[in-house]
Amino acid sequence: MRPERMNAFTDGVIAILITILVLELRPPEGHSFSDIADLKGRLLAYILSFVVVATYWANHHHLMQVVHRIDGRVLWANMLLLFCLSLTPVATAWLGNAGVESGPVAAYAIVLLACAIAYSFLTLALLSLHEEDSKLAQAIGRDIKGRVSLAAYCLALAVAWVEPWVSVALIIAVEIVWFVPDRRVVRTLQGDR
Amino acid sequence: MRPERMNAFTDGVIAILITILVLELRPPEGHSFSDIADLKGRLLAYILSFVVVATYWANHHHLMQVVHRIDGRVLWANMLLLFCLSLTPVATAWLGNAGVESGPVAAYAIVLLACAIAYSFLTLALLSLHEEDSKLAQAIGRDIKGRVSLAAYCLALAVAWVEPWVSVALIIAVEIVWFVPDRRVVRTLQGDR
Amino acid sequence: MRPERMNAFTDGVIAILITILVLELRPPEGHSFSDIADLKGRLLAYILSFVVVATYWANHHHLMQVVHRIDGRVLWANMLLLFCLSLTPVATAWLGNAGVESGPVAAYAIVLLACAIAYSFLTLALLSLHEEDSKLAQAIGRDIKGRVSLAAYCLALAVAWVEPWVSVALIIAVEIVWFVPDRRVVRTLQGDR
Amino acid sequence: MRPERMNAFTDGVIAILITILVLELRPPEGHSFSDIADLKGRLLAYILSFVVVATYWANHHHLMQVVHRIDGRVLWANMLLLFCLSLTPVATAWLGNAGVESGPVAAYAIVLLACAIAYSFLTLALLSLHEEDSKLAQAIGRDIKGRVSLAAYCLALAVAWVEPWVSVALIIAVEIVWFVPDRRVVRTLQGDR
Repeated sequence: MRPERMNAFTDGVIAILITILVLELRPPEGHSFSDIADLKGRLLAYILSFVVVATYWANHHHLMQVVHRIDGRVLWANMLLLFCLSLTPVATAWLGNAGVESGPVAAYAIVLLACAIAYSFLTLALLSLHEEDSKLAQAIGRDIKGRVSLAAYCLALAVAWVEPWVSVALIIAVEIVWFVPDRRVVRTLQGDR
Repeated sequence: MRPERMNAFTDGVIAILITILVLELRPPEGHSFSDIADLKGRLLAYILSFVVVATYWANHHHLMQVVHRIDGRVLWANMLLLFCLSLTPVATAWLGNAGVESGPVAAYAIVLLACAIAYSFLTLALLSLHEEDSKLAQAIGRDIKGRVSLAAYCLALAVAWVEPWVSVALIIAVEIVWFVPDRRVVRTLQGDR
Repeated sequence: MRPERMNAFTDGVIAILITILVLELRPPEGHSFSDIADLKGRLLAYILSFVVVATYWANHHHLMQVVHRIDGRVLWANMLLLFCLSLTPVATAWLGNAGVESGPVAAYAIVLLACAIAYSFLTLALLSLHEEDSKLAQAIGRDIKGRVSLAAYCLALAVAWVEPWVSVALIIAVEIVWFVPDRRVVRTLQGDR
Repeated sequence: MRPERMNAFTDGVIAILITILVLELRPPEGHSFSDIADLKGRLLAYILSFVVVATYWANHHHLMQVVHRIDGRVLWANMLLLFCLSLTPVATAWLGNAGVESGPVAAYAIVLLACAIAYSFLTLALLSLHEEDSKLAQAIGRDIKGRVSLAAYCLALAVAWVEPWVSVALIIAVEIVWFVPDRRVVRTLQGDR
């Protein structure tokens, strides 16, 4: 099975999710510019989630550049990832409405943890389809980045009950690590020459 | 006529439907983590519908892998399928809000039955365009899976008036049968060697 | 300029519009099956609009099969068509809520008339880019179908003030004419042998 | 890295944004045709934003025709553009609800200014990847159009506090300049012969 249509479907779902996020941003009631301040919490939550989802897209895009074959397991691991990502809008809405409190931050951390686990499943399903010396295997290596992220999200979830702001800081830290997505794949692709 | 643009359009519509499903999941009113319990019914209905729609996508994807020619009838059978699938969000919302009662479960079963009938139409329209020894014809065979599903949905609809939970169990059972979509097509594609 | 990306963008917008239509269908308040009757007006309006928009997509798809070159004018004629189509959800919602009365039916006829005019512009913009003996020119011919549709929509708009049900009948009649989209293009493509 | 999937993702996001804009257009409460007058402000705001977003798409489409290579910086500049564009629906909704007053007009100008800055970033990121005598470099030249637009949006933002209608006029003027998107790229592509 070739990955083209799965990629196109993934692009579609992520493009919609990233724009559904913005549906939570309602215009302020008042007419004066300072009323924008009402949106502050939601706008910040929106920016965070936009960057998170965009980063998943960018990393998915990079990952699939070295993938030329998929199977049913990959398809469903990918669906699981899309399912988990589809929960970000509701988690973001809660965070934006309720503010940085234990409940919404913990829910947000759980959604991100689920996304990270699904992404690991996707990686494993792809690896089992490719040889050990394939570009994909080289690019992923021992997947230290993925494992550290899982640990960080677990920590963020635990800390949410005590210091929700620390959880948010952890989430942002993981985000920064993944923000530049290409290193591993790019290095492998360049090693090609 | 070639199927590429029809597939792309189908991907687009299904990607949107699967994300519209999630619009029903509103963040809880309260701020504490336990308020998530309010979402339980909707979340379960969402998970069920996500899996159902994702399964249709996966099966459509598999089916179209062995299709290289379409005509107007295929186009409209596909549109009918998309129409029926487009009713899943409202059926899901009702199920999620009202719970497992006769009314919403029957409505849900009707929508799934309509989807299954439309999928059968699509299969038949495709078969009439391909030779009897084509890969498509081999992959579909006598379409026992499709016929059993239709019967199961009819049964689920009838039972909904008496024992709605049994209907839900039947729906989940059909879902499991289709969950692994590739068997028939994959076997045929592999028989290719 | 090649039409691929314009087609992909059009597919995206139409796929979204056709699913936005369904957002108007809210689940009934009650829990019993007979409460579905509340949805009747909206469901009928939804079916009509789904078929109208799907027909535009199918005809666009057919038209673009014989088009290999576009320019800025085509791009903007296509954008105008998408804009007009984007008004169908709000017109449908009004029709579904208010029922078959002069106001909403006239608004609906105006939107469809605008779509038909935009489609004519698109056809003309494409014709001016292609030779007189091109497949496109042969397929479109004197565009009698297009002209009759424009006249029928004008009539439907006028009649809406007196007998809105007659307008709806006219709109459905035009729809049936376009429902089978391929004749002209298919005949030309087959004349190819 | 090749630009195809980035383009497809961009098409998806812009297609959704342009249709999310229309979600603000709710059908009028009343049943008579004259009730459409209630929608006037929102309809005009919608038309303006539709044209703005459509113009961005058309220019993006043109720009990417002469681009054959992208990198991580281009990807994120493009994401920033999509993020800024994603704020147009909420800015449009405010403008449509509140009318041409200082607050919403200033917010609208800020969003458009942010889009223009992101588009400049995208252009610069692309230029740094291409040779000085590439088609892209020739097509963009000294980017006078881009710089004038930035200045005009800054002016529109400043003027919004005094004469919001003048700001709207400035915004429309910039729009007209970009409406015909192809000149620069088309000229370069034709210089190809």
